Amino acid sequence: MLIGDLGEEALLRQLRGIFNESAPDVLTGIGDDAAVIDIPPGSQGVWSTDLLLQGVHFESAWQTPRQLGAKSIAVNLSDLAAMGATPRFAMLSLALPPDIPVDYILEFCQGLAGEAVGAGVVVIGGDTTRSKSGLVVSVTAGGHIPAGGAVLRSGARLGDVILVTGQLGSAAAGLLAFENGVAERYPALVQAFIAPRARSSAGTAARESGATAMTDLSDGLASDLRHICEESCAGARIELERIPFLPQLETAADECGWDREKLMLTGGEDYELLLTVPGESAGRLREEIDRVAAVPTTVIGEIMPPEYGIRLIDKSGAEKPMPEHGFDHFAP
Amino acid sequence: MLIGDLGEEALLRQLRGIFNESAPDVLTGIGDDAAVIDIPPGSQGVWSTDLLLQGVHFESAWQTPRQLGAKSIAVNLSDLAAMGATPRFAMLSLALPPDIPVDYILEFCQGLAGEAVGAGVVVIGGDTTRSKSGLVVSVTAGGHIPAGGAVLRSGARLGDVILVTGQLGSAAAGLLAFENGVAERYPALVQAFIAPRARSSAGTAARESGATAMTDLSDGLASDLRHICEESCAGARIELERIPFLPQLETAADECGWDREKLMLTGGEDYELLLTVPGESAGRLREEIDRVAAVPTTVIGEIMPPEYGIRLIDKSGAEKPMPEHGFDHFAP
Repeated sequence: MLIGDLGEEALLRQLRGIFNESAPDVLTGIGDDAAVIDIPPGSQGVWSTDLLLQGVHFESAWQTPRQLGAKSIAVNLSDLAAMGATPRFAMLSLALPPDIPVDYILEFCQGLAGEAVGAGVVVIGGDTTRSKSGLVVSVTAGGHIPAGGAVLRSGARLGDVILVTGQLGSAAAGLLAFENGVAERYPALVQAFIAPRARSSAGTAARESGATAMTDLSDGLASDLRHICEESCAGARIELERIPFLPQLETAADECGWDREKLMLTGGEDYELLLTVPGESAGRLREEIDRVAAVPTTVIGEIMPPEYGIRLIDKSGAEKPMPEHGFDHFAP
Repeated sequence: MLIGDLGEEALLRQLRGIFNESAPDVLTGIGDDAAVIDIPPGSQGVWSTDLLLQGVHFESAWQTPRQLGAKSIAVNLSDLAAMGATPRFAMLSLALPPDIPVDYILEFCQGLAGEAVGAGVVVIGGDTTRSKSGLVVSVTAGGHIPAGGAVLRSGARLGDVILVTGQLGSAAAGLLAFENGVAERYPALVQAFIAPRARSSAGTAARESGATAMTDLSDGLASDLRHICEESCAGARIELERIPFLPQLETAADECGWDREKLMLTGGEDYELLLTVPGESAGRLREEIDRVAAVPTTVIGEIMPPEYGIRLIDKSGAEKPMPEHGFDHFAP
């Protein structure tokens, strides 16, 4: 059955069956004009929103609807993770082409609901409407942090080291693999692209362990590091050889002639965390992230004075310029 | 200049210049991974989100970009008003076709910002991306209510009277006027359609004056009243002759052969409030809404036992069935 044949009220009944989690801090969830929520005393609210369009951010052939649903909320929870926040709430808006199968949307929502439950998040509302072109997904996520505890982009200080979680460039290489018809040869890269996980527990662990600045790697290291440096009035020195990558990225780069360095430096959508912490606290922070989140962290450089700029050091010790731009959402 | 020629970073700089309001309860606004906000002690958060698509919800020829921007946030603030909430925060996501003029988007944002400032709302974040079809707008609005104070759809009780603010059917008639090329003849109807105002202060006044149930009239009286009756396990008796309408609605219906009754009962997008209150409190509530919001209110009926169902009474005292459906967002 297609969405156009089902009608809005029937769809909403089915969605309410999927998003049926309740929680003591959700006073009113789906079904009224707006949702009513509590946050813990002494906490502040943390909110983020993202818009995803078929044909721009995803193609339905790339992943199952469940994977797409899970990714749609993961990219939002990644923003909360980058503040060190505890995620709690999400709202989902969908614009649906009439010729999309009902099952596709139900599976999308099941994927999103599964990811939400796993992250301790309740879907508290949203909107459904018709689309004359492709599927449009808007997710808003909310959570909380202890008052004054948010880890901003602006807190990096001289003497801080720069760390990342996970490996870089994988997701951008996964997208390239799809675009070049070689997806089946690089499952780890494809997985990074279609099924990223928000580093929520790593984010809270980083906050509790003294992270001074943090952002998520959505636009690529060059871009996202520049945001931290600009907001913190700081420079940065990155050692190219220390940037972590998956073995499959090297294989794919060799086999397909892709530029591994460029993918690691400017590839978007890894949704790993980029953070800074005073050098003397780095060991404890890394242990803590490993303990609570089981995610590897790597020191890739250090914060420098602003006049230093942002420089890349290669293994011979020579300086290279950091690429100017990461992902531009308006680039064709 | 077109959006596709400007680039994302340049656009974001311009948008930051437009959405530059600060407020003591916005700890971190636009420019970090997520926004950080405070709500007053003893309050609960109230959140709502809407998705609007060019070609589905609006045509750019119908209104100026400023009007469209203002309406995009007004429809969301209307949802908060229907809870009795005080609006405070908004997030704006835009998917932009590359061939849309930069000026169009800047004026859209100025219109939205103006409406936000007027409502005491700060734009705290959002997302911008590329669209391959038309303009897509997603607005999320947040506010707060005293803990336990939300006016839900489920609170209507036997003995309550049913009231509406403003006049009904105007916006649907305004849309018809556009579709039939007679917009210039009915400026009041057109205005209701292109420039609705959220009834925020009427909503808080209604909450403070003992409203038992409330919703906003976005889908049409028949639909929205049914939501209150279903959630409250109640019936309702509506007196057709008491439903308020603009004189221009009668003129347009006569001149164009439109069904005035149907427009009042099933026309969407009026964004007036539909609410219930114990009969003995109705006078005080109406005075209070008039005092703080200068909006007329009209008693249109009363809550009945659930087995009564929903009935319309015409001026002869005869019963008519309430139309089954209001606006279905999936109907072609």
